[in-house]
Amino acid sequence: MKKLVIFGVGLIGGSVALALKQARFTSHIVGVGRTKSSLDEALTLGVIDSAETDIAKALDGADLILIAAPVAQTTAILQSIKPHLNKQTVITDAGSTKGDVLAAAHTVLGAQFNRFVGGHPIAGAEKSGVSAAKVDLFIGKNVVLTPTTETNMDAIASVTQLWQACGAIVSEMPAENHDGIFAAVSHLPHLLAFALVDDIAARPNAAQLFSFAASGFRDFTRIAGSHPEMWRDISLANRAALLNELSAYQLELNQLKQLIENEDGAGLQALFERASVARNNWANSKTR
Amino acid sequence: MKKLVIFGVGLIGGSVALALKQARFTSHIVGVGRTKSSLDEALTLGVIDSAETDIAKALDGADLILIAAPVAQTTAILQSIKPHLNKQTVITDAGSTKGDVLAAAHTVLGAQFNRFVGGHPIAGAEKSGVSAAKVDLFIGKNVVLTPTTETNMDAIASVTQLWQACGAIVSEMPAENHDGIFAAVSHLPHLLAFALVDDIAARPNAAQLFSFAASGFRDFTRIAGSHPEMWRDISLANRAALLNELSAYQLELNQLKQLIENEDGAGLQALFERASVARNNWANSKTR
Repeated sequence: MKKLVIFGVGLIGGSVALALKQARFTSHIVGVGRTKSSLDEALTLGVIDSAETDIAKALDGADLILIAAPVAQTTAILQSIKPHLNKQTVITDAGSTKGDVLAAAHTVLGAQFNRFVGGHPIAGAEKSGVSAAKVDLFIGKNVVLTPTTETNMDAIASVTQLWQACGAIVSEMPAENHDGIFAAVSHLPHLLAFALVDDIAARPNAAQLFSFAASGFRDFTRIAGSHPEMWRDISLANRAALLNELSAYQLELNQLKQLIENEDGAGLQALFERASVARNNWANSKTR
Repeated sequence: MKKLVIFGVGLIGGSVALALKQARFTSHIVGVGRTKSSLDEALTLGVIDSAETDIAKALDGADLILIAAPVAQTTAILQSIKPHLNKQTVITDAGSTKGDVLAAAHTVLGAQFNRFVGGHPIAGAEKSGVSAAKVDLFIGKNVVLTPTTETNMDAIASVTQLWQACGAIVSEMPAENHDGIFAAVSHLPHLLAFALVDDIAARPNAAQLFSFAASGFRDFTRIAGSHPEMWRDISLANRAALLNELSAYQLELNQLKQLIENEDGAGLQALFERASVARNNWANSKTR
């Protein structure tokens, strides 16, 4: 590939750039961003080859465009690139939700929607910004692509190769399946952690409560330190699946509450055993 | 102190023994346990000086008794030691709940309840058993004692010195306050993590869901790998405070759900910001 344009050179966009440079996958990487200071930082760190504020210049001769900005900016970015797209340019994104992104791309890109491949790299992101970018962020990590029946096969192949060059394991599924899966295993836990900390922080004795919180609390709430704007966008973008997950979880909590109210020791132990066995099996399978 | 008797030589009891030996706080440590094999292991590892199945012999000349067995066994252990107690022997425990333990001690010990000091070391315990015991487990960790107005001052001093010799920071509060605090910052998060894993593991597509779970899920659910029997006992022992916490949390979840249903981006961002600021402030204060 000759020219890659990255919108949003933060943790994700910056790490892609570093990995592709190391793999010699691209000859030139252009960064486009909201703020000049972060682009300057990306240039200084050697993450990108050039920074551009003029979209026409940035896209001239571009083989692939990666949108790695916050999800809520996707529509505006697609609108800004639409007039300058070449016929062969492939477009992909790195957003945590896919149904909303595909809908936006379909609306904005029209006939060129077949060159858009939705993507989601599953890589930890509690730190943000280009200074947190790492060349090995995606090694061994899952990347899910969500092509539709309309998507051009060469476009899918280009995006697959990009992520494989970063060391990732690429799979494909419909956007709806993706959003359902991540509502359960990522978006719901984030909301539960935010909710617990907010619940405790609002109390008159919050300082005393926090002073006795220990390592279990630390790990459980780590994801409550995540980026508020990003999680606002995800919560809204994946609204339907997330509301389903919250409802299912509330039923589970009601069941647990009932077991405690009934002083049902056997029922509690059975629930805790199912959970601990499943959790430890999962953790062991991941370290293999 | 001359002679310490430990009921339950597992992670907690074993780590106390190792720390007190290093501090030369005791001249002799006797282990008493449910199973001969774990006592033999404790002897082999040099954690205890002798193992005893005869309670009368174990308690002969004992200065302090530490009950570090699962909370549900506390009453049976107190009943077994009652006939063999010397007048000067101090008794303490290491259970995660205190109201139930004080009630049991009051009932069983009668006039000697004034020599009982409830205690709770706040130290991570996802591993269990004497093989996981560590000499430095309590260094810099909080230990909460829950004396009553009846408790003998010398007994409180002895137990305080024991934990300080292990490197812990000792504080005192009423049992009811203790149980309320730990319901919020420890017991509730454990139940929430168990509930999430149980919710996901029960689904037809559980294997697919787990295959896409990543580092956020790993940290959030670490405490769902905890000991089922121990958490059954804690859930029942701290029932009232935990039901209050579950109800408060359900209100918080309803509020969050409402914000998503209303597509209230500003409200969601405000909640996530409150939580992330509180969480990160807490984490920073803990590493100082």
